[in-house]
Amino acid sequence: MAKPIFFFGDGRADGHGGLKALLGGKGAGLAEMSRAGAPVPPGFTITTEVCRAHRRAPGRAVPGLERALRRLERSAGRRLGDAQDPLLVSVRSGAKFSMPGMMDTVLNLGLNAVSVEGLAARSGDRAFALDTFRRLVTMFGNVVMGVPKERFESPREAGAEAALGHALEVFRRETRREFPEDPREQLRAAVEAVFKSWDNPRAVTYRRANGIPDDLGTACTVQAMVFGNRGGRSGTGVGFTRNPATGAKEPYGEYLADAQGEDVVSGAATPMPLKRLKRAMPEVYRRLLAVTSGLERRLRDAQDYEFTVERGRLYLLQTRAAKRTAAAALRIAVDMTRERLITREEALLRVDPAALDQLLKPVFDEKARRGHATLAKGLPAGPGAATGHIAFSADAAVSAAKRGPVLLVRPETNPDDIHGMMAAQGILTATGGLTSHAAVVGRGMGKVCVVGCGDLDIGAHSLKVGGRTFKEGDYLSIDGFTGEVLLGEVPTQPSEVLRCLEGTLAPSRSVLFRYYSTFMRWADAARRLKVRANADRPGDAREARLLGAEGIGLCRTEHMFFGEKRLPKMLAMIVAETPQERERALGALFPLQKEDFKGLLREMAGLPVTIRFFDPPLHEFLPHGPEEAQRRAAAAGVDPGKVWDAARRLKEMNPMMGHRGCRLGVTHPEITLMQARAVLAAARELKDEGVSVSPEIMIPLVGYPSEYRHQAALVAEAAKRVPGSARLAYSVGTMIEVPRACVVAEAIARDAEFFSFGTNDLTQMTLGYSRDDYGKFIREYLELGLLPRDPFAGLDEVGVGELVRMAVTRGRKGRPGLKCGVCGEHGGDPASIGFFHRAGLDYVSCSPYRVPAARLAAAQAAIREKRAGKAYTTA
Amino acid sequence: MAKPIFFFGDGRADGHGGLKALLGGKGAGLAEMSRAGAPVPPGFTITTEVCRAHRRAPGRAVPGLERALRRLERSAGRRLGDAQDPLLVSVRSGAKFSMPGMMDTVLNLGLNAVSVEGLAARSGDRAFALDTFRRLVTMFGNVVMGVPKERFESPREAGAEAALGHALEVFRRETRREFPEDPREQLRAAVEAVFKSWDNPRAVTYRRANGIPDDLGTACTVQAMVFGNRGGRSGTGVGFTRNPATGAKEPYGEYLADAQGEDVVSGAATPMPLKRLKRAMPEVYRRLLAVTSGLERRLRDAQDYEFTVERGRLYLLQTRAAKRTAAAALRIAVDMTRERLITREEALLRVDPAALDQLLKPVFDEKARRGHATLAKGLPAGPGAATGHIAFSADAAVSAAKRGPVLLVRPETNPDDIHGMMAAQGILTATGGLTSHAAVVGRGMGKVCVVGCGDLDIGAHSLKVGGRTFKEGDYLSIDGFTGEVLLGEVPTQPSEVLRCLEGTLAPSRSVLFRYYSTFMRWADAARRLKVRANADRPGDAREARLLGAEGIGLCRTEHMFFGEKRLPKMLAMIVAETPQERERALGALFPLQKEDFKGLLREMAGLPVTIRFFDPPLHEFLPHGPEEAQRRAAAAGVDPGKVWDAARRLKEMNPMMGHRGCRLGVTHPEITLMQARAVLAAARELKDEGVSVSPEIMIPLVGYPSEYRHQAALVAEAAKRVPGSARLAYSVGTMIEVPRACVVAEAIARDAEFFSFGTNDLTQMTLGYSRDDYGKFIREYLELGLLPRDPFAGLDEVGVGELVRMAVTRGRKGRPGLKCGVCGEHGGDPASIGFFHRAGLDYVSCSPYRVPAARLAAAQAAIREKRAGKAYTTA
Repeated sequence: MAKPIFFFGDGRADGHGGLKALLGGKGAGLAEMSRAGAPVPPGFTITTEVCRAHRRAPGRAVPGLERALRRLERSAGRRLGDAQDPLLVSVRSGAKFSMPGMMDTVLNLGLNAVSVEGLAARSGDRAFALDTFRRLVTMFGNVVMGVPKERFESPREAGAEAALGHALEVFRRETRREFPEDPREQLRAAVEAVFKSWDNPRAVTYRRANGIPDDLGTACTVQAMVFGNRGGRSGTGVGFTRNPATGAKEPYGEYLADAQGEDVVSGAATPMPLKRLKRAMPEVYRRLLAVTSGLERRLRDAQDYEFTVERGRLYLLQTRAAKRTAAAALRIAVDMTRERLITREEALLRVDPAALDQLLKPVFDEKARRGHATLAKGLPAGPGAATGHIAFSADAAVSAAKRGPVLLVRPETNPDDIHGMMAAQGILTATGGLTSHAAVVGRGMGKVCVVGCGDLDIGAHSLKVGGRTFKEGDYLSIDGFTGEVLLGEVPTQPSEVLRCLEGTLAPSRSVLFRYYSTFMRWADAARRLKVRANADRPGDAREARLLGAEGIGLCRTEHMFFGEKRLPKMLAMIVAETPQERERALGALFPLQKEDFKGLLREMAGLPVTIRFFDPPLHEFLPHGPEEAQRRAAAAGVDPGKVWDAARRLKEMNPMMGHRGCRLGVTHPEITLMQARAVLAAARELKDEGVSVSPEIMIPLVGYPSEYRHQAALVAEAAKRVPGSARLAYSVGTMIEVPRACVVAEAIARDAEFFSFGTNDLTQMTLGYSRDDYGKFIREYLELGLLPRDPFAGLDEVGVGELVRMAVTRGRKGRPGLKCGVCGEHGGDPASIGFFHRAGLDYVSCSPYRVPAARLAAAQAAIREKRAGKAYTTA
Repeated sequence: MAKPIFFFGDGRADGHGGLKALLGGKGAGLAEMSRAGAPVPPGFTITTEVCRAHRRAPGRAVPGLERALRRLERSAGRRLGDAQDPLLVSVRSGAKFSMPGMMDTVLNLGLNAVSVEGLAARSGDRAFALDTFRRLVTMFGNVVMGVPKERFESPREAGAEAALGHALEVFRRETRREFPEDPREQLRAAVEAVFKSWDNPRAVTYRRANGIPDDLGTACTVQAMVFGNRGGRSGTGVGFTRNPATGAKEPYGEYLADAQGEDVVSGAATPMPLKRLKRAMPEVYRRLLAVTSGLERRLRDAQDYEFTVERGRLYLLQTRAAKRTAAAALRIAVDMTRERLITREEALLRVDPAALDQLLKPVFDEKARRGHATLAKGLPAGPGAATGHIAFSADAAVSAAKRGPVLLVRPETNPDDIHGMMAAQGILTATGGLTSHAAVVGRGMGKVCVVGCGDLDIGAHSLKVGGRTFKEGDYLSIDGFTGEVLLGEVPTQPSEVLRCLEGTLAPSRSVLFRYYSTFMRWADAARRLKVRANADRPGDAREARLLGAEGIGLCRTEHMFFGEKRLPKMLAMIVAETPQERERALGALFPLQKEDFKGLLREMAGLPVTIRFFDPPLHEFLPHGPEEAQRRAAAAGVDPGKVWDAARRLKEMNPMMGHRGCRLGVTHPEITLMQARAVLAAARELKDEGVSVSPEIMIPLVGYPSEYRHQAALVAEAAKRVPGSARLAYSVGTMIEVPRACVVAEAIARDAEFFSFGTNDLTQMTLGYSRDDYGKFIREYLELGLLPRDPFAGLDEVGVGELVRMAVTRGRKGRPGLKCGVCGEHGGDPASIGFFHRAGLDYVSCSPYRVPAARLAAAQAAIREKRAGKAYTTA
């Protein structure tokens, strides 16, 4: 066995911060702090290796424990069990990965009938000494001897003496042994108990849930105790080296005099702002700032630390990278770069891309929020905070929106709800996962969205949740960051960054925006992947451009067929009985489509716009019952019988794998022709106006090269009918979303001018997971650890990813330099963007609001690849 | 250009039978016959190469035409246009691939005002000569000049002379030209017209539909005409070298005196049996038999020939491999091997595996059938002939079956219909394709099955089709070979081979069975692939064994949960609210499952039996409406509210990709445990009885190695609960049916002991085709030639096949020698079996009735591979 025990203290340490696997997070941190000259109470860490050996052969003595203890006693200047001035130690667990509260700790170790009197004398506070001893007896009895905690509880005894007597009595009764008076015996038993606690059920469950291997073991740190509750010149506090809310470089924290850490946490007393310590104990304050800013420089990140002052002497107990808001993360990263603490690349790696979303979203006023009960929790599908009157139907949402903000509450949404979703601030559903209709479409619209909230019981005109009943018009709030549903109206604040981007707030008035701009400029300079947005409407496209999109990667044209004016025409098209009738109905849609495309292309002037042709099965446009058929047929001026017949005839068992995508284009070539004409005519008209346009026509759901050619031939035919289209800069390509397309990618690419991976459908088919239905089993899969992550949220690199790689490789064999992008939901997921970078894609495309995150993720992917050099491979 | 014209006649020929690409099928056949010394009227063939050149530069003279014509005149001893004894020729098209009736022909060419008199004089029949001329004018006018045929029609003229005059008059009026008197000009124009007819719309459509390339071109054969209508010593006939119905080696055919070929075909006169020609013209008859048996020897296959006798002189006009019944094919192949005309390998390649199906099925009495109208046509999904009272529900079918044979008629079938399907002789559905539930399950049961018959209008108690209405109990008949629905009761005949196999007919009394046995013995000796059957019930397993199955490749255990006794228990299991409740319900199913498995394993003693664990989504077992829920809940003794709740809760948007297969096993581990215990307990009890068993437990729908391990761990847990299971010979493996499983096959195979490809689901997911829904577009795809074949009938080798190869290769990397089989419907498709052989699979598994066909297909695959040597690759 290597060195079993690592000492720290006196400004030195055997270990250092890089030894987390051996010393645990806590042990490594203390070693590093000690090396940094921070005033850390001395101690030593028994390695995880000893723990592992101990698991194989329990009960064996820890080699070198006695020697380590003697060194600790020398350093502390006190001896364990000493009758005059006893050393007290804590014995704590600490593993490579943080497992907060899962394993055991024994505090105040070293007290017995003799040394307690020494502590009483030294501290001048006998009650404190007796109470400290009582705490040891209780903790030792519970942790080491396995006596349930509640057994030690008792009606408050008259005094500290009686309470200690009671504890010792309980210990004796429950364990049939005396409390061990020998402090060394106490220590040996406590170390053994800490090692054993690695295998307690809580810890095992936690590891399973968090994917931590069972064979790592825990380290055990024995450290001299210090006490903040020894009078006015004692106290305890927590602090940050920079403001964790804004990132400003200023001392920040709280301090409570004559108290221990747990008193701060319990909220029994109100601590004072850290800055006031400057007046109370200027020396201690100066020392604290010096030490912690030294730690920050050494650890090269903003720190969150705990400290104790014992009779005017400062001790640092813990330091770690500070948790921070997205705004603070940005500012700290940029400031530290300017302070030359870190490089630009490091700065870019420091900010979680997902956190950028937060900067663009309205948020709840945190203080106001505390007053509102959480009613239920669903899946956070669209970030942001939304509050509004609830509406149970799309129509109700539209009319309620005239009076104020609205939350659309539905069991699940479908394309018929689009107008209601657009009218609402937020969307709340009872079923569906992170890629359900509500989630995908809602997020695409930038709506706040909470889905799959199973505790909702939604009726036609009421909602039951958390034991309460709500009616149409009642106020609720939803938090799209956490998935929480909150009672009542919680005030929200608009995003500062977005207001600057949109021009409603002067950039000069926003510190945050200046940091945002700098940071994003750095990110853009570092990345290779282009970032586009998925957008169907000019407004979304404008937003996307503001957020940095370099084109549209996916315009879903079918969204253009919904809406009051268009749906009747669509209906007429579907029930048409001859190609001629159908062409007539499509003729009515043509000018609308052309204007749609003109709006989008104009907004994205100078940038590429990928237009996916009609994709969903026709039955999505049809009524669900005979009454609806009647009503809608009347509106469209067609025979209701025909409408209902069509609805029944076109119904499918598995619509996901049915008559949709280019399969519709094959059986209804008129649709492809109309859409191609509309794209080319729009491009032509804009070109005549002097607008630079580059439409990319995308054929969906191609599996056979023959069907691609069939559709591309129709586009060519349409081009013949649009004068001047030969001189337009447009291309025709395909969406790769059927596994077969990956296999035959080489042949497809001989004809197709670009590939765009539709990773949603590709995931559905490669895994055989219907995203409408996989909610029925996915949670259990994730809990059991059978899947590492929801495959619709993060790309399944091993399975789906290999097909993507195959398609890219083969596609570029068929057409060297083939442009490849991704337009599925994964295009906005930072981890997946890393994969797409490595797979050699040219761009990713995502919802407009995810564009900044995608830009950063792309930069991080490029930096990581550069750092890893050629050795980098997908884990 | 190579040689442009190939001469034949006088027992010689420039070409031969191998030059189909150059001379067309007809030209190559005539050359071969000529070389064989058959008395073929002389002629010559202008090559397809000339045609191709002609397409590029129309109107160019055919090089060497005049010289070829002079050679023909010498050989025939007559001259074109001769005033005394004119030569008449036919000018016919003929491409590499047969395109019957699609291109043009001109007959009787060479007549004009002068030569017609010569013909009249020589034939002694002026009316014949004039009529022959009229036919030329009409045909030439139509084919060469493009005058619609009907323009030549007229009220019957007084005589041949007037009719000819009318034809010439029409010609003049419509073309504004005189009929060309110069026979050489006639010839040049006719050749040009034949070449042009390659590009006529009919031919283009036909080629598109049949996948024939457009750039092949047609050959053009010019041949001396002979006439069978020149009196008593003239005539025409067709014959076979062996009996095409039985395969017996005997002359067979028909002869009609003083007639031309078209008179035989038109049915205007009744021909006599060929044998009677022996008495009428013994010399001609002897010569005919000698010539045709010579052709058979030379061409090494039974021939179907056409001949004409002109004034006592025999002419062979055509010969080709004879079409034959399955029985004849077997007998001819075996006999010819014994006659040393062909090798055993050739014999095995000569029989179409699909034809073997016919031998096992009841068939209609062909004569009786002619009296029954065909009402509609669907897809032939299960071969055989069935007749019976129609029933519109499964229950009605069951009760009607007590009174006589039944046809179950349904819009489509689902698992609730199983008992009705079992009770019926045949199944007829209005929707669904070749792999719909009705097709797959019906075929699996060996039922005659016609599906997707769109012309049926099925009500609750009546069926409208072909303008008639049928009620429950009316008689219909269906032909599972052709997909036809016939009016009334058509008598059927049972399969002779099956009766012998089942022991109800002594093999000594069946010539056919002796040939069948010999032939199948040869097939079994030649193949490498093992052949198993898909069977769920002991009766099916027994049948499969008789048909040569070497194990069960797929037992679908879910079929065991239907039926009156079990469905209520299943219902109780599904609505169970705790694992304990569910285990109790499963406890009631356990003894039934165990007995199911015992029955199957006992039947297959000594052979492997693959048992697939529970696969379908639970909602398949639930009611479709509240009334049904009420009724079924009562039967199961559970709360109807719970049943209907479950039905709604478990409903899925895309059940194919939903909560099924091992996903159910993960969320409901009790089901896997129960099934594993049932398999192992059954095996254990049989072993104790001395029965040799080898169950193979198959986990369905695995996509992640982790889920396989989860399920395999449950099987191991179950094994602990079955005493003595450690000494049982069983294995655990998985079905490969999700594309992801193919990608991660190496990792899966490290744990799984075998792979079985579920190519139905693998095809669904790889192509994104729901087999319940693809009927909505697949016909159009096939008609447009976008797909070469229905991918559920024949494996998509390029797409799905590549994933299969990937999985085999990777799987065997993870576990060398991994046993791989296929149990999807493709396991019974001869072409697909060829692929599976080449992909290195160990076995195929198919419906019992397809086992003989699969054995032969496997043999053919092995032979083809051997012949192709290493150079063999998938086309």
